[in-house]
Amino acid sequence: MSDLSPMDLYETLTAQGDTVRSLKAQKSPKAEVDAAVQLLLQMKLDYKRLTGQDYKDGCPPADGEMVVDTGAVLEDGDDQVDPWNVSSSSAKGVDYDKLIVRFGSSKIDQELVDRIARVTGKTPHRFLRRGIFFSHRDMHQILDAYEKQKSFYLYTGRGPSSEAMHVGHLIPFIFTKWLQDVFDVPLVIQMTDDEKYLWKDLSLDECHRYTIENARDIIACGFDVNKTFIFSDLDYMGASPSFYRNVVKVQKHVTFNQVKGIFGFTDSDCIGKISFPAVQAAPSFSSSFPQIFGERTDVQCLIPCAIDQDPYFRMTRDVAPRIGYPKPALLHSTFFPALQGAQTKMSASDANSSIFLTDSAKQIKNKVNKHAFSGGKDTVEEHRRCGGNPDVDVSFMYLSFFLEDDDQLEKIRQDYSSGALLTGELKKSLIETLQLMIAAHQERRTLVTDEIVQQFMSPRKLHFNC
Amino acid sequence: MSDLSPMDLYETLTAQGDTVRSLKAQKSPKAEVDAAVQLLLQMKLDYKRLTGQDYKDGCPPADGEMVVDTGAVLEDGDDQVDPWNVSSSSAKGVDYDKLIVRFGSSKIDQELVDRIARVTGKTPHRFLRRGIFFSHRDMHQILDAYEKQKSFYLYTGRGPSSEAMHVGHLIPFIFTKWLQDVFDVPLVIQMTDDEKYLWKDLSLDECHRYTIENARDIIACGFDVNKTFIFSDLDYMGASPSFYRNVVKVQKHVTFNQVKGIFGFTDSDCIGKISFPAVQAAPSFSSSFPQIFGERTDVQCLIPCAIDQDPYFRMTRDVAPRIGYPKPALLHSTFFPALQGAQTKMSASDANSSIFLTDSAKQIKNKVNKHAFSGGKDTVEEHRRCGGNPDVDVSFMYLSFFLEDDDQLEKIRQDYSSGALLTGELKKSLIETLQLMIAAHQERRTLVTDEIVQQFMSPRKLHFNC
Repeated sequence: MSDLSPMDLYETLTAQGDTVRSLKAQKSPKAEVDAAVQLLLQMKLDYKRLTGQDYKDGCPPADGEMVVDTGAVLEDGDDQVDPWNVSSSSAKGVDYDKLIVRFGSSKIDQELVDRIARVTGKTPHRFLRRGIFFSHRDMHQILDAYEKQKSFYLYTGRGPSSEAMHVGHLIPFIFTKWLQDVFDVPLVIQMTDDEKYLWKDLSLDECHRYTIENARDIIACGFDVNKTFIFSDLDYMGASPSFYRNVVKVQKHVTFNQVKGIFGFTDSDCIGKISFPAVQAAPSFSSSFPQIFGERTDVQCLIPCAIDQDPYFRMTRDVAPRIGYPKPALLHSTFFPALQGAQTKMSASDANSSIFLTDSAKQIKNKVNKHAFSGGKDTVEEHRRCGGNPDVDVSFMYLSFFLEDDDQLEKIRQDYSSGALLTGELKKSLIETLQLMIAAHQERRTLVTDEIVQQFMSPRKLHFNC
Repeated sequence: MSDLSPMDLYETLTAQGDTVRSLKAQKSPKAEVDAAVQLLLQMKLDYKRLTGQDYKDGCPPADGEMVVDTGAVLEDGDDQVDPWNVSSSSAKGVDYDKLIVRFGSSKIDQELVDRIARVTGKTPHRFLRRGIFFSHRDMHQILDAYEKQKSFYLYTGRGPSSEAMHVGHLIPFIFTKWLQDVFDVPLVIQMTDDEKYLWKDLSLDECHRYTIENARDIIACGFDVNKTFIFSDLDYMGASPSFYRNVVKVQKHVTFNQVKGIFGFTDSDCIGKISFPAVQAAPSFSSSFPQIFGERTDVQCLIPCAIDQDPYFRMTRDVAPRIGYPKPALLHSTFFPALQGAQTKMSASDANSSIFLTDSAKQIKNKVNKHAFSGGKDTVEEHRRCGGNPDVDVSFMYLSFFLEDDDQLEKIRQDYSSGALLTGELKKSLIETLQLMIAAHQERRTLVTDEIVQQFMSPRKLHFNC
């Protein structure tokens, strides 16, 4: 595929159209005309491939991110990243720098991390300090406005495909809770039970039940009930005409060609899948929540999510200005690796691929010892001599997600690399960290009563200053 | 296209696949193998055209009406009939007998009309007596159940694309009111303001306003407020989780291939259009209205509508058994002709193509005199000698819709055919009939207060015995 931008290609194409017309007008030799026409046709094919649209004279490509971002369904080397598939051939996992280029987002660099610290007056979260949230869109704009007392709201979500959530599922919620605390902003959490019904072999009632069970785990992350609204699509769509209106607005401004380009849908997909991206887009607009924002349609949205959800929001950002709404800003996280290695995301359906929030201390110990891919050497002697490789060691990766103390983590990294720390000892650190964390989570979860769930999930006014 | 059914073609195709495999296994001459493969490919193309699906070995075609009914987007002779286009090259209008064959519905014959009279104990409505409702699906099943005290509910609708409704728009409502009266059943009326937003260059608020204005005209037809629920999609979707659940259920069971085959959608259509058919399907299921039917999912639905809406309900009938619901039954009407002739449906955007419900007595008189296509002869002398042709005369067609007295209508037909009645006199009859009817409608409409509209449009319990 050409390296040209859609606009470059459009202009070259228009010029080639003129060339063909002038050759024909001058009655040039047939071979010359044919060659020019062939080139024109080839360029039209390229244009269609690049933009998902047929070339039309006089209609330049839409000025949006969507048309250039077909990256989601391309495979770059061996990394594949879209909302349903994440895989990499490297033991270090996906190449995130390449992904930033491909998706056209921006790197969260030290300058941005420092700025967040300055604006909030708080130490940046370890996910920021360690590049776990590594990419963003328009975060500086959010901060510019925030500095001028113009607030924003947070939006994140979960697809409830089973009762069991694993530690990887907590990443966006742990970080979102921190954002809610340091910025003091309202938060909406979408449970896409409709999506799970459409994609999986589950009944509506099962998906709805998973929503409620997952909501308990989310609430156990410590969200402020006065600033947080958790909603099931299946419930809220039927409880808010404003939400449906925004869904229909988005649906009017996105074509099948576009979702085909962005999500890789085919003609054999059901019409529910094809139109679902509008349902995930709608919470990006404050007017979807009149109970929170009143008549305001201009409150900007900040979405913390794993990078595989970005295609939904590229689409949303393309549509937003066309329906009179601000584009949502984004903060993207890396993927949480499976115990078996960073090549894939964890799977909720494989109990041994991850640590579940329901695991006992003993299960945690066994899973880490048995399944966590090690960057250590085959024998103690060799390990002592050559040292282990923390970059591919899953236990070390997990510690970098969950161990708060930077110095302690750095010491583990150095000792493991030098060979001073053995794999068993590294695993022991992780096991203790996870056991403490999961036990604390389980304890908080038992305190989440049906009434509390009900409270979080009732459409209502939230505490919101702006 | 082949005359084979999808299942016939599937079996022939499977056999041809076996032939190809056995020829290859026997290392038959290349020409023989090639010919067999060519035939196989051709059959696969036919299969795809017929069913909208790729042929897959071991997957027989779905056992439904949808797959064989691609008729909606075909052109048969010069008649085109789908939800957005109706046109015919004949001055008599669409050939409805052909349409019954093409759509695979059943003719409303004298036996069915007599049965309705017997079951209800009422004279059949003039629309039944005169073949204006001419086609049905499963009406005998509705009557069988009704005779066993098993009731049903009615569902009809309107796409509110402007404030102004014309007399043609009243046809399904006039008939539905009669059905409600004689069967004593509840009725739901869907105002597809979301559809109009998706298809037209209108804002959501405009579409919603047209819903309310059109609802006034519909209420003025005399519906019983205790048995009628009128709803805006934009409102009701956001007021009923049960409705959205049924929309999602339908969306999961219909592919883009299928809506492409049924409605002629293309890849350039917006995802809202592509998924909208599920919104029109959902009111066919009683569980979309728990406030009326409680927990019952098995109350059958009868849909009176113009035949151009049939594609939506062929799709609905295909999906129904797969999601555990009864198929809706249908009664189809012919189209109401434009003043200029029966070749097209009337257009709400051309004031002279029809009589509007807001027209004054004088406007009615002028429009009929000026624009109503006449089947009369060019001069009085010729007319007296040869007679007129009521079959193409729009004034006569209109009278057959609105003049209740069969004898009077028959006398007009005979006198016009013989030449005893001149075009001016025929038009005078129509003008008087319309003036009376429209004036009465306008008077009833002034009595429809905002409170009454509100009452009809509130989700609530209805009077329902079954």
